[in-house]
Amino acid sequence: MRRNLDGLLFPRSVAVVGASATPGKVGHALFANVVNFPGPVYAVNPKHTEIMGKPCVPTVSDLPEPVDLAVIVIPAEGVVEVLRECGEKGIKNAVVISAGFKECGVEGAKREQELVRVAEEYGLNVVGPNVLGIISTRVGLNATFAPRGALPGHIAFVSQSGAFCTSVLDWAWKERLGFSHFVSLGNKAVLNECDFLLAFAEDPETRVIVAYLEGIQDGPRFMEIAREVTREKPIVVLKAGRAEAGARAVSSHTGTMAGADHAYDAAFRQCGVIRARTVEELFDFAYILSRQPLPKGRRIGIVTNAGGAGVMAADAAEWEGLTVAQLSPKTVRELAEKVPKEAAIHNPVDVVGHATLEQYQAAVDLVLADPNVDLGVALSAPHPILRFSDLARVVAQAQKRTGKPMSVSFMAGDLGEEAQEILRDAGIPSFFDPARAVRSLAVLAKYAGIRQRPKGEPERFSVDREKARRVLAEARSKGRVRLGLEGAEILSAYGIPFARGGLARTAEEAGRIAEEIGKTVALKIVSPDITHKTEVGGVRLNVAPKDAAAVAWELLRACKTRFPEAVIDGVYVQEMLPPGREVILGMVRDPTFGPLLMFGLGGIYVEVLRDVAFAVAPLSRAEAEELVDLIRGKKLLYGVRGQPAVDVKGLVDVILRVSQMVTENPEILELDLNPILCYPERVVAVDVRLTVAEEEK
Amino acid sequence: MRRNLDGLLFPRSVAVVGASATPGKVGHALFANVVNFPGPVYAVNPKHTEIMGKPCVPTVSDLPEPVDLAVIVIPAEGVVEVLRECGEKGIKNAVVISAGFKECGVEGAKREQELVRVAEEYGLNVVGPNVLGIISTRVGLNATFAPRGALPGHIAFVSQSGAFCTSVLDWAWKERLGFSHFVSLGNKAVLNECDFLLAFAEDPETRVIVAYLEGIQDGPRFMEIAREVTREKPIVVLKAGRAEAGARAVSSHTGTMAGADHAYDAAFRQCGVIRARTVEELFDFAYILSRQPLPKGRRIGIVTNAGGAGVMAADAAEWEGLTVAQLSPKTVRELAEKVPKEAAIHNPVDVVGHATLEQYQAAVDLVLADPNVDLGVALSAPHPILRFSDLARVVAQAQKRTGKPMSVSFMAGDLGEEAQEILRDAGIPSFFDPARAVRSLAVLAKYAGIRQRPKGEPERFSVDREKARRVLAEARSKGRVRLGLEGAEILSAYGIPFARGGLARTAEEAGRIAEEIGKTVALKIVSPDITHKTEVGGVRLNVAPKDAAAVAWELLRACKTRFPEAVIDGVYVQEMLPPGREVILGMVRDPTFGPLLMFGLGGIYVEVLRDVAFAVAPLSRAEAEELVDLIRGKKLLYGVRGQPAVDVKGLVDVILRVSQMVTENPEILELDLNPILCYPERVVAVDVRLTVAEEEK
Repeated sequence: MRRNLDGLLFPRSVAVVGASATPGKVGHALFANVVNFPGPVYAVNPKHTEIMGKPCVPTVSDLPEPVDLAVIVIPAEGVVEVLRECGEKGIKNAVVISAGFKECGVEGAKREQELVRVAEEYGLNVVGPNVLGIISTRVGLNATFAPRGALPGHIAFVSQSGAFCTSVLDWAWKERLGFSHFVSLGNKAVLNECDFLLAFAEDPETRVIVAYLEGIQDGPRFMEIAREVTREKPIVVLKAGRAEAGARAVSSHTGTMAGADHAYDAAFRQCGVIRARTVEELFDFAYILSRQPLPKGRRIGIVTNAGGAGVMAADAAEWEGLTVAQLSPKTVRELAEKVPKEAAIHNPVDVVGHATLEQYQAAVDLVLADPNVDLGVALSAPHPILRFSDLARVVAQAQKRTGKPMSVSFMAGDLGEEAQEILRDAGIPSFFDPARAVRSLAVLAKYAGIRQRPKGEPERFSVDREKARRVLAEARSKGRVRLGLEGAEILSAYGIPFARGGLARTAEEAGRIAEEIGKTVALKIVSPDITHKTEVGGVRLNVAPKDAAAVAWELLRACKTRFPEAVIDGVYVQEMLPPGREVILGMVRDPTFGPLLMFGLGGIYVEVLRDVAFAVAPLSRAEAEELVDLIRGKKLLYGVRGQPAVDVKGLVDVILRVSQMVTENPEILELDLNPILCYPERVVAVDVRLTVAEEEK
Repeated sequence: MRRNLDGLLFPRSVAVVGASATPGKVGHALFANVVNFPGPVYAVNPKHTEIMGKPCVPTVSDLPEPVDLAVIVIPAEGVVEVLRECGEKGIKNAVVISAGFKECGVEGAKREQELVRVAEEYGLNVVGPNVLGIISTRVGLNATFAPRGALPGHIAFVSQSGAFCTSVLDWAWKERLGFSHFVSLGNKAVLNECDFLLAFAEDPETRVIVAYLEGIQDGPRFMEIAREVTREKPIVVLKAGRAEAGARAVSSHTGTMAGADHAYDAAFRQCGVIRARTVEELFDFAYILSRQPLPKGRRIGIVTNAGGAGVMAADAAEWEGLTVAQLSPKTVRELAEKVPKEAAIHNPVDVVGHATLEQYQAAVDLVLADPNVDLGVALSAPHPILRFSDLARVVAQAQKRTGKPMSVSFMAGDLGEEAQEILRDAGIPSFFDPARAVRSLAVLAKYAGIRQRPKGEPERFSVDREKARRVLAEARSKGRVRLGLEGAEILSAYGIPFARGGLARTAEEAGRIAEEIGKTVALKIVSPDITHKTEVGGVRLNVAPKDAAAVAWELLRACKTRFPEAVIDGVYVQEMLPPGREVILGMVRDPTFGPLLMFGLGGIYVEVLRDVAFAVAPLSRAEAEELVDLIRGKKLLYGVRGQPAVDVKGLVDVILRVSQMVTENPEILELDLNPILCYPERVVAVDVRLTVAEEEK
């Protein structure tokens, strides 16, 4: 659902329910901020007729107009009733500051459910409860009880933690960082991050959307929205709680490898969300994305008057995935004429310590104008003659003229207010540490790549969905939640190539199937009670068709003797395949994002080297290809050491068919296709384990 | 050589040669700093008799005493002569500020050579040339021309870049970061980083040694010194120039994998030097190492009044290699009594936003006192009632009482001068970003581990050194710089197990050797002109002894036909070995550190996954064991998936013997033992390639 949040984010009139005239109260701190709103402001409080010069009415129904936004800051017990009054009055937007809901035990949770019901009944947009409030700098509204407001700017910020909001406001004030919107999400009873992503996407004042999240409420919706939004505007997220222990019980190989954080990483990557690891990164990235243009490529030009700084910047460029640009011969020639003779005229360009302002400027201008340079960093140590303010001006002019993004590291304790202001006006970030200046630039290049990434719909094959449903339903009706080779039928319904074979109930049938296959076969016991069939001697390899019946008889007898209690379905007779590259493809259901696929090279690559990659299904073809590309050992598939490439297209098809299968059949809880054998001309799965949901009673 | 730098670092009297009375000149700026030195200060300048109230003499010989330290700031042409005068006068220490030496072309380089000769002649300790100068806060000396001096402290800093020195001084002043010594190394003509490591190691005021280096002059000496020093004091190094392209020509597999930066990484790791990646890390690490005690372990206690900050700190702890401590039941019980009921009383302990100072303090005290907690971080968001200065006092007291290291993240723009001063006095670092506070703590734990690491001498086996020398000398005398299987003799001289075999000149001899081996053999052509013998059909596998002569004859004939110009030494007859875990062990000579060993799992693990590790030889047993431990796939050696462990002890022995071999035989430039086959009961090398230095003419 797409909500209209205009009245919430750009209100024309505001009422504060619970506004207080008593200093020290939250309702007082909040109202003291709200009164600066340039439109009509009302207080609602039965004890007063006026607070801070604004009209005060006893109840919401007494308001002279249905205001665009009601901010509610009364004890939790009264909140639901006030919301109902808002609904009756025709007020559509509310921010519930009050705590005492879901975060406070059973009673609070019940209260929150009532709040949601009333919001639904009246179609209310509710922020919170349990929030610091919201700020909209464009309309001059600060509806928080924080001691600091926000400066205007182009960053829209949402945070799940109210305390973090206060921290950020206080710090941003010192750093002169501006915001378009500032939203404390609180309990997310009604509105959550998704609603604000949509609203900010359409706000022309917002250039970058920044979020601090501890969880995401609706993973699939988040992905759908973020996928679209990131084509237009960057989204940077600090998702805290990486270390959280996964409490899920898992029975598949994939399940033991996949943590909640893999799902977040995969989902963010797939929908183009930039993940910040730390608060420092979050705002470094936000600032440069909101103020500098995007580069055309990844080639950085480095200008310095201090050699060490240039070396540090080049190091950082390498590990941040930028390339140190190779300057054009023309640039090098002109540099040679204009900078001191001791200067290094190849990138990094070091004009050396005694260069004049004109020489430094010439270097910045020439390097930035070079067609081989996409983005630039300017560096300087403190200098007996050069003033940082002049250098700042040089950088700002060059940036403006060329339209290429820049950052700065003037390595000194105090730039002087003037230099700082010049850089701030130009939106050029400046850090003591050259590495941090380069890291900021790198995020621009990263986002430029995200905007250009191919658009693709999940691929849908024509499959026998009915057959898959039938097999799953049958297994579930029998209470069979773990399927082995008998699950191969579901795969065939989805066109996933599987080694030829079939389930034999008897030794004779095994012989018949083997003769049909007409080549050496493997015999594998099929039993819901015998999971590790290889380890317990439930497998016979390299059996000639003519011997199959006898070997099957022997195998069945041995298993019945060893596991007298086991239900034995029969023997799976399967063609023997030549050795090939083994890969594994698996799936678990992530509580937030749903079907999480895992791909990796099989055997020890997975178990010892943990060389696996994750993606949330359903996948587009480009995403499936990316999944293969993400593993370190991908060269083993693309051909290495004279070995031919495997059928990567066929492998990608299998990934896409599995993606479709797990998306269309939510009863499949976990899946391992392990191994899938990859050959130059085809790929074929050899073993499967499935966990299906128990039938609902 | 261990130099006595007391007169340089703690001079009792100072002369400035080239002191100037003219503002704007370097000799003026410098002298203006030096005049604040509390001991006797002289100017040397023929134009004056007094400068800034200090006596001025025309030449060094006119000085009334042989001062402890001469600072020279005159044009380059006169420097060598002045140094000679210093020597004659009995002055032992000089800082040469002047530029115009090695950094300025051929003439400058010659001048620097003369400087070195004079320094040697008189036994002078010379800093520079081409430096900013030196500072020694304990004796109140600032002999730099920087506009800012240094505050007293416990960090000794050396920097190869003078510009970076200026930057750091300026920034450290703003951050109130103090130094014991501050040294600009410049061209390192006489004194280099090693000399200062030794001097600072003995200085009781210095608690941590910090260096910015672009290169190291004498790698082995650096390692020897750093190995010792880091047992007593931490050394933190920012080595810039990671990205530098290796220009070396290499012919071995190891050579293609090993870059200069691998050598620095390995050398630093082996001698306990902490490598900082960025300037921010360099000083974050330096500060906490100089001011906080070392922890007993890696278990962190986290106290916060803002949930999000606690989660971020826990995330950072995980990726920095700390563990979130499990609080003792007693602590949890007492916490439950003393903090608000909504608080989270398991680590991270979140006392929630409305906790009082007493409650916050109780939490900090209890968590830090818990025997399961080794180090602590205290977090807070801005708070309507709590003052940061009070929180700072609480943290400082708890830190002092328990002696456990702490850091702080009060997430706000301005802590207020008072809170900052309290934390500074207590030496407790404080950052906006909780992740940065945790990263700082982690370095303490890392260094605590470095101090405790086992001490070990390089292991020396009794070997047939003469035999190895003979084989090498013979090859070199024949101009053979690349050796294949014929190099196996050198290995046997060092007791390195090699597959049984021998070189046959003729087919008949091949037959005889095969019969001696008495089992299936491989035949491999031996020719200095045929390097990739497998690819050109120069190898025959699985040959029965009785067929060996015939197959060898065929092999020789085929090679002679295909490579009519090739010198063919014969056929190497080698026992066929069963499959085993393949590893590779190689060596290249690093220009800075010498023999750099590379170890990895063989084949695709090296080529595709680049799963290799490096170490500078010679190695102690602990270092050789660490080398095996460093590869990601080590589990494949220690046993996995039911496979038994290989003979790791035998493998470590091979590494140690190779380490000894390449150390004792510097003519060996490169080496590949590839593969070495590892079995549960033994390891044995199967192929070898050696590059030896050409004989000097």
